[in-house]
Amino acid sequence: MERNYDYEQLWRFTKNVFTSIGCNEEHALLAATGLLRADLRGIDSHGIARLTGYVRLWEAKRANASPNLELVHETPSTGVVDGDGGFGLVAAPFAMDLAISKAKNVGSGWIAVRNSNHFGIAAHHALKALEGDMIGIVMTNASALVAPTFSLERLLGTNPICVAVPAGSEPPFVADLATTTAANGKLEILQRKNQEAPEGWIQDKEGNSSTNPHELKAGGALLPLGGDREHGSHKGYALGAIVDIFSGVLSGANYGPWVPPFPAYVPVPENMPGKGIGHFFGALRIDAFRKPEEFKKDMDQWLNRFRQAKPIAGFERVLVPGDPERMMETHRRKNGIPLLHAVIQDLEHLAERFKIPAPGL
Amino acid sequence: MERNYDYEQLWRFTKNVFTSIGCNEEHALLAATGLLRADLRGIDSHGIARLTGYVRLWEAKRANASPNLELVHETPSTGVVDGDGGFGLVAAPFAMDLAISKAKNVGSGWIAVRNSNHFGIAAHHALKALEGDMIGIVMTNASALVAPTFSLERLLGTNPICVAVPAGSEPPFVADLATTTAANGKLEILQRKNQEAPEGWIQDKEGNSSTNPHELKAGGALLPLGGDREHGSHKGYALGAIVDIFSGVLSGANYGPWVPPFPAYVPVPENMPGKGIGHFFGALRIDAFRKPEEFKKDMDQWLNRFRQAKPIAGFERVLVPGDPERMMETHRRKNGIPLLHAVIQDLEHLAERFKIPAPGL
Repeated sequence: MERNYDYEQLWRFTKNVFTSIGCNEEHALLAATGLLRADLRGIDSHGIARLTGYVRLWEAKRANASPNLELVHETPSTGVVDGDGGFGLVAAPFAMDLAISKAKNVGSGWIAVRNSNHFGIAAHHALKALEGDMIGIVMTNASALVAPTFSLERLLGTNPICVAVPAGSEPPFVADLATTTAANGKLEILQRKNQEAPEGWIQDKEGNSSTNPHELKAGGALLPLGGDREHGSHKGYALGAIVDIFSGVLSGANYGPWVPPFPAYVPVPENMPGKGIGHFFGALRIDAFRKPEEFKKDMDQWLNRFRQAKPIAGFERVLVPGDPERMMETHRRKNGIPLLHAVIQDLEHLAERFKIPAPGL
Repeated sequence: MERNYDYEQLWRFTKNVFTSIGCNEEHALLAATGLLRADLRGIDSHGIARLTGYVRLWEAKRANASPNLELVHETPSTGVVDGDGGFGLVAAPFAMDLAISKAKNVGSGWIAVRNSNHFGIAAHHALKALEGDMIGIVMTNASALVAPTFSLERLLGTNPICVAVPAGSEPPFVADLATTTAANGKLEILQRKNQEAPEGWIQDKEGNSSTNPHELKAGGALLPLGGDREHGSHKGYALGAIVDIFSGVLSGANYGPWVPPFPAYVPVPENMPGKGIGHFFGALRIDAFRKPEEFKKDMDQWLNRFRQAKPIAGFERVLVPGDPERMMETHRRKNGIPLLHAVIQDLEHLAERFKIPAPGL
């Protein structure tokens, strides 16, 4: 039960929704573009399917639709932005622009953001750096769903790391990865289909490895990349912790088990030590290290060597991080974005409520 | 067949060896201190057991014992160091000092190093940043032993990432992880004992998952963190690739399958595009983001919450990255460093050759 929509249709509709809840023109544009980038790149769990979630957060007064974004502390290469409780979809481009501008001045720029909310997919923000011949680095923390190695308790979010690197004639390198074995979105698909999860994705409420995807909602937890100690879960845990410290502790946001959840019906944790959720943005100018033409020649050779690597029998080819998402974006910009019936219904309810045209009308 | 040696004994011996092959006093001191830090922290595969390997590299004229280290390009927050073909154990402290000095000036410092060799354990270099109330970040590439997801070919090294974060009264956070399921040192132990490896550590020369630790030397490969696609190996692959690009491509060193190997008897790759192996060093000043006392209070709360987390039944406690290595360092500084008989023999041969006292004499 799917239907295809033009990107432009969905973008206009999304922007109208953000305007309807009080975002100004510029913020609505940023938010719609960021949110829809997830759908374009095939990360459907982070795209327009979450639009009602954003509206509910605003409704519950847990997201500020007209934030006053402020750079509260800075050095020539670093800074902290207070997102004023607004959407991460708005704070993230503001912070990434600052990182880029500092990189223009002193070679690199690093901005930690506090008092924010979810910002869509990290890759959307990191890709901005490529336009200025820079490497883009983006992280964010999120509410705790993940149990560290040996822990019965959930203490970390799925805490993604994204690094985007420009190249010459080859398409760029864009790694965007949750620091868990599997993203929560993949588990949600298995829950809907009532299918088993592979070993190493989740543990049950006693801390035993489980293949039942519903255990996560019954007191279980997602597992860090690696799955168990023997397969390196202490490394996935360390990576998720690094993201949490850079995004949460360095900015003055919440961290660990105190990060507020995205669903508005889930209560916020007690005794939160910081403000909102936290992000971290970096930009590194290529010519702050090497002549860009030399770097790009080497980067092209790197990308070409990996893309041409001999695959294992039965596999078509070796992919470079970002290849599947880039191909998906090309396809969906041309052929439209498929939406599930349940998502379409949600959007129609929003259209009715805010008296705006539903997408496709 | 082990014997215990005082740290000071081994340190003096190691320094004598580096002096004997032509290192000046300052370089020999840096190299010995760096190398022995691995033994202190329990990473025996990267410590004094490799000393003969360093000597063989020098002998084969693949390591320069009297390099002229040079900062060849810089901006206020970045730079590139040419290691002049010397030991990474010498280039790394030089580069980390530069990163720290740039961070003092503009908030953060980032140094890429080319034309270097192995630098011991990443944590030794990252920990230096803590003394200046900074976060330390260290990466290095290494010769290709790892097959990307779906690849029959080895294209990446075990490429570690280290992040060290200062705290207040709690011991610091120090994550130092190879981006593979298991470090090569762990596989070598299984090879010696003729024991099977867990699934997800290695593939054989056809690209099939294997539990035979000897497959690595028969055309097989180590696997990226995650092990296989279903368990997120594409993420471990992406992380190893990020380390390779930052260390190798950004610096002008070799990268991917062209990184020269550590064992002097293994020929260097043909048509190497860069110089030597590459590293990447970063320092982020805490007060470039927040008041250090506020950061440390939050960091202490973070560390304390994770260290006090409720463990799964059967496990004693939840560890914070760096805890086992710190405890080992305390223990070994006091009780000495155990060496295997084969390692002791190697050291005795070096003592004979360079006419210096063997450790323990």
